[in-house]
Amino acid sequence: MNQITVHSPATVANVVCGFDILGFALNEPNDELTISLSDVRGVTIINEDDYQLPTKAEDNVSGAALLALLSETPDIKGFQLISKKNIKPGSGIGSSAASAAGSVVAANILLNNRFSKEDLVRFAMFGEKVASGVKHADNIAPAIYGGVTLIRSIFPLDVISIDAPELYVTIVHPQIEVKTSDARQILKQRILLKDAIKQWGNIAGLVAGFINHDYDLIGRSLEDVIIEPVRSILIPGFDEIKLKCKEAGALGGGISGSGPSIFMLSQHASTAKIVEDVMKDIYNRIGLAYHTHVTTINKQGVKQIVL
Amino acid sequence: MNQITVHSPATVANVVCGFDILGFALNEPNDELTISLSDVRGVTIINEDDYQLPTKAEDNVSGAALLALLSETPDIKGFQLISKKNIKPGSGIGSSAASAAGSVVAANILLNNRFSKEDLVRFAMFGEKVASGVKHADNIAPAIYGGVTLIRSIFPLDVISIDAPELYVTIVHPQIEVKTSDARQILKQRILLKDAIKQWGNIAGLVAGFINHDYDLIGRSLEDVIIEPVRSILIPGFDEIKLKCKEAGALGGGISGSGPSIFMLSQHASTAKIVEDVMKDIYNRIGLAYHTHVTTINKQGVKQIVL
Repeated sequence: MNQITVHSPATVANVVCGFDILGFALNEPNDELTISLSDVRGVTIINEDDYQLPTKAEDNVSGAALLALLSETPDIKGFQLISKKNIKPGSGIGSSAASAAGSVVAANILLNNRFSKEDLVRFAMFGEKVASGVKHADNIAPAIYGGVTLIRSIFPLDVISIDAPELYVTIVHPQIEVKTSDARQILKQRILLKDAIKQWGNIAGLVAGFINHDYDLIGRSLEDVIIEPVRSILIPGFDEIKLKCKEAGALGGGISGSGPSIFMLSQHASTAKIVEDVMKDIYNRIGLAYHTHVTTINKQGVKQIVL
Repeated sequence: MNQITVHSPATVANVVCGFDILGFALNEPNDELTISLSDVRGVTIINEDDYQLPTKAEDNVSGAALLALLSETPDIKGFQLISKKNIKPGSGIGSSAASAAGSVVAANILLNNRFSKEDLVRFAMFGEKVASGVKHADNIAPAIYGGVTLIRSIFPLDVISIDAPELYVTIVHPQIEVKTSDARQILKQRILLKDAIKQWGNIAGLVAGFINHDYDLIGRSLEDVIIEPVRSILIPGFDEIKLKCKEAGALGGGISGSGPSIFMLSQHASTAKIVEDVMKDIYNRIGLAYHTHVTTINKQGVKQIVL
């Protein structure tokens, strides 16, 4: 095989009480990435979308991730990558992670899977560093592993797949810009111990709820007393959306990644559709443009497709 | 039945990275509590041990818990409680919780189980308030529910039983006094967000490790970057014991409750015995008196016994 095409999924990081440690992959939307070996040293990037992302490898999320991989493959001269992004950069559903994760998974298939998933996370984090200045894995790990993933530790990397029941995910992306670096900067460096205790009670409950397929417990645990109160002020309509979506039957939800997208989890497809309508109504009334997605958790992660 | 006797277990609270939210019950040691209805209003306490605990109900841990229960049983005039404590007060393995939990569970059996486990936790917390000034449930909940319990939230109370694999527990109780109130006072009210993130990564890993019976993950997650560095300075030999016990094969461990007892978890009984020897050697060398216990997790909690 001399050319591999993959679909690389959007992801929800943080997951309310799991700031910097939890994420899950979505079945929609996906980026489409096609990779082949190249005689040109380094990474040649061809963007087939309208986002005008950089084509210089070092400045490109996919490029940086592939360069990291290339640094451990002395037998390979270079790659050519064709990128068709469907996940809008800056949406808060892991656009950069989809580029980084998809590129290295595709490259690894081309190389007969010589690297482990942990290696691929390690490479892809170089892409995240280009995007946000920080090597974080809470979008990359679920994109590569699929499902819900816990990043217990980054250094050393410790990724744990967390079983979860069937869940429907409703996403709304209000068309405003929240830079990850800004969203990070407004966070307080010090927090109250009593708030931290609440947070680790909730993350413990959320993990138990996922593994035990306990929907009620998942709902009760989707509470964030530390990050959300600070970041949600950047997202118009956030409090109303959260309240009304829960009234409409959603288990709970919150900011996706660093925003501005908001996600809600539901036990049933029908509820997830009602939740979508609630979101639409509120942003229609506010007069803010938006996109919505109703999807499920992607258990496989990046997957090879045949064009 | 007009008299009920129970064994009420020692418990390990906090469990390293689960400060204030996690605990588990032990098969040894146990307090023995015998309760009967009384025509005397309130709670009459008879202590059959050498600890000279208060006998006035309001000042006694069992008494306060039973008074809370009595406030919701207008048909019952009073109880007589005979208390034989084997769990030394101030040891850090839930001596007060054993008194409080055992008393209300015994009373509830006498009353044909009219209260739920959650009610009993609620009553028993009045006992903890007498003991430490704070209504906490991380010893009481495992004593009442058995096994490993997560207290996701105290107000409202949300106790979740966490499945766990077979684990052997080695405890060493150095004969020094650490008051819970002192151990609480030296904690910082504010902590670094980056430390909190590590902590909630670890508690998420620990819960996943327990439920998935993943011993390695349990071991990797038994790390506390917030409480242990502050409190362990109150316990002579702590760092050496932890290091040497892990070298000897323990999965990990740390301060039991607010100390001074130290607990270690092992996958095998033989390791737990070796770990006990390591603890003994260190305190023999230091020249500090101690008690040790090698036991397992008590899955049932407080249990009725026939004398």
